[in-house]
Amino acid sequence: MTVSEAVTLLRESGVDIEDADLTSFLRGVVAGPRQLDDAWMDLLGGDLSPSARDALDRCRSELAQSVDTGLGPGPAPADRLDALRKELKDRGVDGLVIPRTDEFQGEYIPARADRLEWLTGFNGSAGAAVVAMSQAAIFVDGRYTLQVRDQVDTDRFTVRHLVTEPVTDYLEQVFTAGQKVAFDPWLHTRNGVVGLQRAAKKAGFELVPVADNPIDAVWTTQPAAPLTPVRPHDIAYAGETSASKRERLSETLKKDGRKAAVITASDSIAWLLNVRGGDVSRCPLPLSFAILHDDSTVDWFIDRRKLLPGLSDHLGNGVAVHPFEEFSDALADLGAGGAKVQADPATAASVVFDKLIEGGATVVEDSDPCLLPKACKNDVELAGTRAAHTRDGAAISRFLAWLPAAVAAGGVTELSAADRLQAFRFRDPLIRDLSFDTISGAGPDGAIVHYRVTEETDRPLRQGELYLVDSGGQYLDGTTDITRTVALGEPTDEMKDRFTRVLKGHIAIATARFPAGVNGGQLDGFARQFLWSVGLDFDHGTGHGVGSYLNVHEGPQRISKGAGGVALQPGMILSNEPGYYKTGEYGIRIENLVVVIELQDQGLGDKPLLGFETITFAPIDLNLVDVSLLTDRETAWLNDYHAEVRRKVAPQLGDDAEAAAWLEKATRTL
Amino acid sequence: MTVSEAVTLLRESGVDIEDADLTSFLRGVVAGPRQLDDAWMDLLGGDLSPSARDALDRCRSELAQSVDTGLGPGPAPADRLDALRKELKDRGVDGLVIPRTDEFQGEYIPARADRLEWLTGFNGSAGAAVVAMSQAAIFVDGRYTLQVRDQVDTDRFTVRHLVTEPVTDYLEQVFTAGQKVAFDPWLHTRNGVVGLQRAAKKAGFELVPVADNPIDAVWTTQPAAPLTPVRPHDIAYAGETSASKRERLSETLKKDGRKAAVITASDSIAWLLNVRGGDVSRCPLPLSFAILHDDSTVDWFIDRRKLLPGLSDHLGNGVAVHPFEEFSDALADLGAGGAKVQADPATAASVVFDKLIEGGATVVEDSDPCLLPKACKNDVELAGTRAAHTRDGAAISRFLAWLPAAVAAGGVTELSAADRLQAFRFRDPLIRDLSFDTISGAGPDGAIVHYRVTEETDRPLRQGELYLVDSGGQYLDGTTDITRTVALGEPTDEMKDRFTRVLKGHIAIATARFPAGVNGGQLDGFARQFLWSVGLDFDHGTGHGVGSYLNVHEGPQRISKGAGGVALQPGMILSNEPGYYKTGEYGIRIENLVVVIELQDQGLGDKPLLGFETITFAPIDLNLVDVSLLTDRETAWLNDYHAEVRRKVAPQLGDDAEAAAWLEKATRTL
Repeated sequence: MTVSEAVTLLRESGVDIEDADLTSFLRGVVAGPRQLDDAWMDLLGGDLSPSARDALDRCRSELAQSVDTGLGPGPAPADRLDALRKELKDRGVDGLVIPRTDEFQGEYIPARADRLEWLTGFNGSAGAAVVAMSQAAIFVDGRYTLQVRDQVDTDRFTVRHLVTEPVTDYLEQVFTAGQKVAFDPWLHTRNGVVGLQRAAKKAGFELVPVADNPIDAVWTTQPAAPLTPVRPHDIAYAGETSASKRERLSETLKKDGRKAAVITASDSIAWLLNVRGGDVSRCPLPLSFAILHDDSTVDWFIDRRKLLPGLSDHLGNGVAVHPFEEFSDALADLGAGGAKVQADPATAASVVFDKLIEGGATVVEDSDPCLLPKACKNDVELAGTRAAHTRDGAAISRFLAWLPAAVAAGGVTELSAADRLQAFRFRDPLIRDLSFDTISGAGPDGAIVHYRVTEETDRPLRQGELYLVDSGGQYLDGTTDITRTVALGEPTDEMKDRFTRVLKGHIAIATARFPAGVNGGQLDGFARQFLWSVGLDFDHGTGHGVGSYLNVHEGPQRISKGAGGVALQPGMILSNEPGYYKTGEYGIRIENLVVVIELQDQGLGDKPLLGFETITFAPIDLNLVDVSLLTDRETAWLNDYHAEVRRKVAPQLGDDAEAAAWLEKATRTL
Repeated sequence: MTVSEAVTLLRESGVDIEDADLTSFLRGVVAGPRQLDDAWMDLLGGDLSPSARDALDRCRSELAQSVDTGLGPGPAPADRLDALRKELKDRGVDGLVIPRTDEFQGEYIPARADRLEWLTGFNGSAGAAVVAMSQAAIFVDGRYTLQVRDQVDTDRFTVRHLVTEPVTDYLEQVFTAGQKVAFDPWLHTRNGVVGLQRAAKKAGFELVPVADNPIDAVWTTQPAAPLTPVRPHDIAYAGETSASKRERLSETLKKDGRKAAVITASDSIAWLLNVRGGDVSRCPLPLSFAILHDDSTVDWFIDRRKLLPGLSDHLGNGVAVHPFEEFSDALADLGAGGAKVQADPATAASVVFDKLIEGGATVVEDSDPCLLPKACKNDVELAGTRAAHTRDGAAISRFLAWLPAAVAAGGVTELSAADRLQAFRFRDPLIRDLSFDTISGAGPDGAIVHYRVTEETDRPLRQGELYLVDSGGQYLDGTTDITRTVALGEPTDEMKDRFTRVLKGHIAIATARFPAGVNGGQLDGFARQFLWSVGLDFDHGTGHGVGSYLNVHEGPQRISKGAGGVALQPGMILSNEPGYYKTGEYGIRIENLVVVIELQDQGLGDKPLLGFETITFAPIDLNLVDVSLLTDRETAWLNDYHAEVRRKVAPQLGDDAEAAAWLEKATRTL
């Protein structure tokens, strides 16, 4: 199927498009994640005939198979580094900093932005590189110390630790006074550049922003920007119109004398405009930029081809759509008359600040104005997420009911188990994606906190081992994230002791009560106390914020040591996920999501009394519980929880008698 | 008694001194806190005759009575502000920032440094002022909102909140582009100046360091720098020689390639050199500066007149004493050849960094190298502090035994009670000072967290009220800090409920077990959980670090929300002081000091298992305990604690049968 043939069929369906435009369109489509449906075809407009749809699908499929992006397994070819050095030399600079980020600073990036992988071969989820003329280094964290040696040519790239041997230290060591080090100001936040500048000042080199990225100049097969449909997020799920949100936020801008706020975080824009998209996997987000004005209007900078027919009506006349390329000039225009303009130095690219300042704006560094309102879910969002969690709990229960016999029969592996779980989830008509790559770890693999199973590491589930599965779904009505740890066969006393300590910590968070003003950092120790008392701990936070059909990791709320985040407020969704990991043997984690609520009993203080409502419903493996270690109140919590799981999940299991029988037993009263 | 007459008598004792020098000496003596003994006379050398000592004492006393420093009650005269503005105008600047600090950035400052009080009349323990040509403001925190209106002429000084309406905001509002705002770079830390510079950049004014303080130029009656004896801190209390400490620290400097560290915190220098002094009240410190070199030698900048005869021998030849005035030049000299020099931006004056940079040094901003070693007490220091606490507990017990009958008899007030407690403490031959001003609060005064009783606020202790007393001593062998809350007569059920919740929090900290690596911030919630669960809380940290015959507030260890401090390490002393405050009615606080220890039972983890040893010994008022709210383990802790109090304190009470009988009853088993 050639593009020309497809164009002919499209014209018959009333879509007037040139060959070149369709090719460009399809390049964008294949540059994004695989779509669940063919709504992307509707972006072309018209009422497509079945044969036109078929033609488009074949064109897309052939392009996807034929395209060579230069990304792939194993170390990158050496000539890429050589080409980059030549490019840098031609530009008169002595080095380049290469972070693993895109212009939007999100957790997931599209293939186009994976310059680090193209240059080095490393495809981990966090990292950076620095290239100098006679040396280069790659920076990864503890999760990737083995992987980086498989994927990167360590003769050409020195491996350094991202946190303890950071980029800034390397820059200070390698570059000297008078040298020029380039960076792409679209790929570093304002705060990030401050760190680079400090290093430059110490070592004496000059830090030079580039107008276009030097890697893009030599990456001839770089994918296009992803082109996936942007859809309305229905008021039935959002619970508040975009107009109302924009009004609320602009009132604050006006009160503070700020003319506008620049918003660059993709989930903030999706929340503000009540839209969802699919430009990166696992997060239902369109990549774009926005400017919110103090009159509640928004200028939205996005490739117009992404907007499904009818989206303009949904946006209303308070939102003006502009080509992506006009964002820079719009920033410069904001500064007229020295107007105060707000931008977030922790999330917005450095170039945003440069453009604002060039334009004469008085820049107010402040956090993204959507951050807190987005975190505090409204009643409609909460009702939606409760419903999504009930259905998700049923999928998990079906999976857990299926597992024991399947493992006993043999042949179940980490990968096949994850696939099976995904299949249970995808029975739900409202699901759109998983909310992150499933962590499916048997035995020692369960002890690797961020384990991501691959063909190479795939391991059968064996009797006598623990199996840890951390997974979630993106449903139209909510985002889920749940971890269960189950004993395959008979667990050891040690496993039961550790599991019960983790459970006690989980219950301590679930039942915590605290006045408004307390932040998650102040609760973190509650989850750890029973491990601490015997000298144990777990090396990750207790809880992260979760979005409403948005990012599964969102701020500013969290339960973790250190700064501890903002004060917890009603409507915030967080995970409650203490764990314990014995390297080389097993991992334990018990994760439910909770919502911050005002308690019925408002206590004695002046401030509202808050607590958590647990909204995840699936059995916690009673075979791993040592009841003698629980207090009466803890046992009562577990029994109450399981009674509610039974009440909510049983009706979802339909005529699956086996699952129903399993659920009954799995939620028995202790 | 004239100075000339005293000089004559001194000469007869072999002390050759001029009139002018003796006058200057005496001015220094009266500028410091009142001394417990007449060791200050020994600073003159010689073997003074009784009549010479008598003459000196009379001269000192007469000078103290006749001197008018311009400090005192009520608003400062208006002409001071006028004189300062004229001075600023003469210097060509448009304003001045006036912090309440001295060059050493300690918690207590000598009278000479109380420029804020001289200019405004405000004598609270924290605050600042900004003077512009046509307006001025004073900045105080929530403790002082009433006091500031009594003490300051608010027609001339706008009152602002130190934290929520900070100096930097005011500077941005008041000063405009092209204006010059002066600051004294000896009175602001490096970090503090960074904040001022940010404001200057925003508003466009120029921030100008001054070579000498403009207030000093117009404060004609400014006191001298205090002149009090510096004594050796005996190895029997210090447990480690200064040479050994200097060796340890310089090894680290050498390892890091640093030529020297500048040390400006007075308690760090006292610890490093094993000396103690008395330049400010409540802290046994000489005010001075020091430079530690990588060969373990120290250059010490201090008024040589303060050193008691024999101190040079104690210091040894690794410590060179220099006049205070040579410090600036010495800093400049350190930079020869671009040497790396360490200084602490959080505690060292901004000018220290300026001088180092001028001299060509590569400045390494790092925390004071004494901070952590000083915080981790050695076995000798711990033995000393345990002994001091046992004796201090006996003084507290005598006081608590005396109190009920005295209150019933009538006439006991907050001030008289505090005096009585001080008298009990001062029976101990090793005591040198209180460790802070006693907080003695009856009824509603107990609810004021930082209450400082004065003649105006003094209140009788009444039946039916609670009485809160927070106090401590500076003993040669240790520093104490204890709070007890006692019921006068019969407490209400509410008081008992709140007291028991505070006690449960106190016990949760006292019995906490945790692996090495955990910081105090992670434990803070343990102390609050039983108040939180009914919507209550207390508005201060749970614990602060405590020195060893040094500052009663020391870092970096602490138990509080927010950043949470460094990981707790064996030997650190902290307070454990949860509370509850009902405004207008009563205050509750239960405070013991604890030492971080490695537990006997080392648990199951890879890291050392840590916990706390409680070292404060005095009864907790059982009349305020609702036993039905305690778990069995909590009741057992309380009984064990009281048994130990009895064991330790009873032998200290000598033949005081009444106190012994009271102790027996106060520590009865529940």
